[in-house]
Amino acid sequence: MRISARNILKGKIVDIVKGQTTAHVTIDVGGAIVTASITNESVDDLGLKKGMTASAVIKSSDVMVAVD
Amino acid sequence: MRISARNILKGKIVDIVKGQTTAHVTIDVGGAIVTASITNESVDDLGLKKGMTASAVIKSSDVMVAVD
Amino acid sequence: MRISARNILKGKIVDIVKGQTTAHVTIDVGGAIVTASITNESVDDLGLKKGMTASAVIKSSDVMVAVD
Amino acid sequence: MRISARNILKGKIVDIVKGQTTAHVTIDVGGAIVTASITNESVDDLGLKKGMTASAVIKSSDVMVAVD
Amino acid sequence: MRISARNILKGKIVDIVKGQTTAHVTIDVGGAIVTASITNESVDDLGLKKGMTASAVIKSSDVMVAVD
Amino acid sequence: MRISARNILKGKIVDIVKGQTTAHVTIDVGGAIVTASITNESVDDLGLKKGMTASAVIKSSDVMVAVD
Repeated sequence: MRISARNILKGKIVDIVKGQTTAHVTIDVGGAIVTASITNESVDDLGLKKGMTASAVIKSSDVMVAVD
Repeated sequence: MRISARNILKGKIVDIVKGQTTAHVTIDVGGAIVTASITNESVDDLGLKKGMTASAVIKSSDVMVAVD
Repeated sequence: MRISARNILKGKIVDIVKGQTTAHVTIDVGGAIVTASITNESVDDLGLKKGMTASAVIKSSDVMVAVD
Repeated sequence: MRISARNILKGKIVDIVKGQTTAHVTIDVGGAIVTASITNESVDDLGLKKGMTASAVIKSSDVMVAVD
Repeated sequence: MRISARNILKGKIVDIVKGQTTAHVTIDVGGAIVTASITNESVDDLGLKKGMTASAVIKSSDVMVAVD
Repeated sequence: MRISARNILKGKIVDIVKGQTTAHVTIDVGGAIVTASITNESVDDLGLKKGMTASAVIKSSDVMVAVD
């Protein structure tokens, strides 16, 4: 599957914390750390585990820009 | 200002393309390229320019995870 | 690629309207019509055309529920 | 109330799972299954129950497009 | 129609700027100014005009919190 | 830090409810009540407490418009 989301940042899963319905998955993408809030079902369906290679996928309309 | 968004990826602006109302700003964050769709007004208000240091800011609920 | 987004609605592209930076792609998913606002670059990169089979992909945290 | 969201997919609620603050509501929209992550308060305020008629509402800027 | 979005801020439209596909609608909600990026089609379908009463509707998962 | 998000609504925190991973923070912005779903970590990192001055920050592409 190829997707229209402009941002596909490949890295390695460094942490997974599950709540009752929502999980937080942390991915190291070349030094920068990206946190994703996804459903527990997605964690299970994709078989996500610490140490796995995975990508953070982000639609460009969900990215803001900040300056100091 | 400090913000609740979990993902603040610092980098350098490599491109800015303005449409009639929406602009696409591309930021190099340590090798990975992140594209943001923001309003033209934001580009002007923040004084964004190619080569500037800037951060891509993303709420964790807007990040998905993909595996091959 | 498999993705954490819970909603992957397969259908057929019925319309594509490009603006200067943003395009609107309309997909018929089994009778229901779904409109996606994506970048022009995505339309070009994926080679999207009217009549093509394509899926509307939506993160569950972006879905609201309404009742009459 | 009429809303600017382009995508209003009418169907029937097939499942509701509540977490501590966030609930997952699954709606069958003419065969396709759509999952919404909404607050528990919304579930209570709208009186959502399995079997009810309800619509999945999605802003077009939150819809991505994927192809095989 | 009642919707699960937690934030429905009633006010008055103070400006509408249309691009080729995307419009920016500005609403004064009791002093605070809220800008919405919506499709041109939505502006036309809802018959939005300066001076009209309208609400800004925002899903709580799209709201961040900032402190100084 | 200055950010591209068009909507920065300053107010006072009136309630914080934590779930296992996600918290709901309610802010009174000049009379209107805005609810934010953010991670528990953000609540802790920003030191959010009832009565504090804080802003609700919302990207304009996440704002819809509704009329009666």
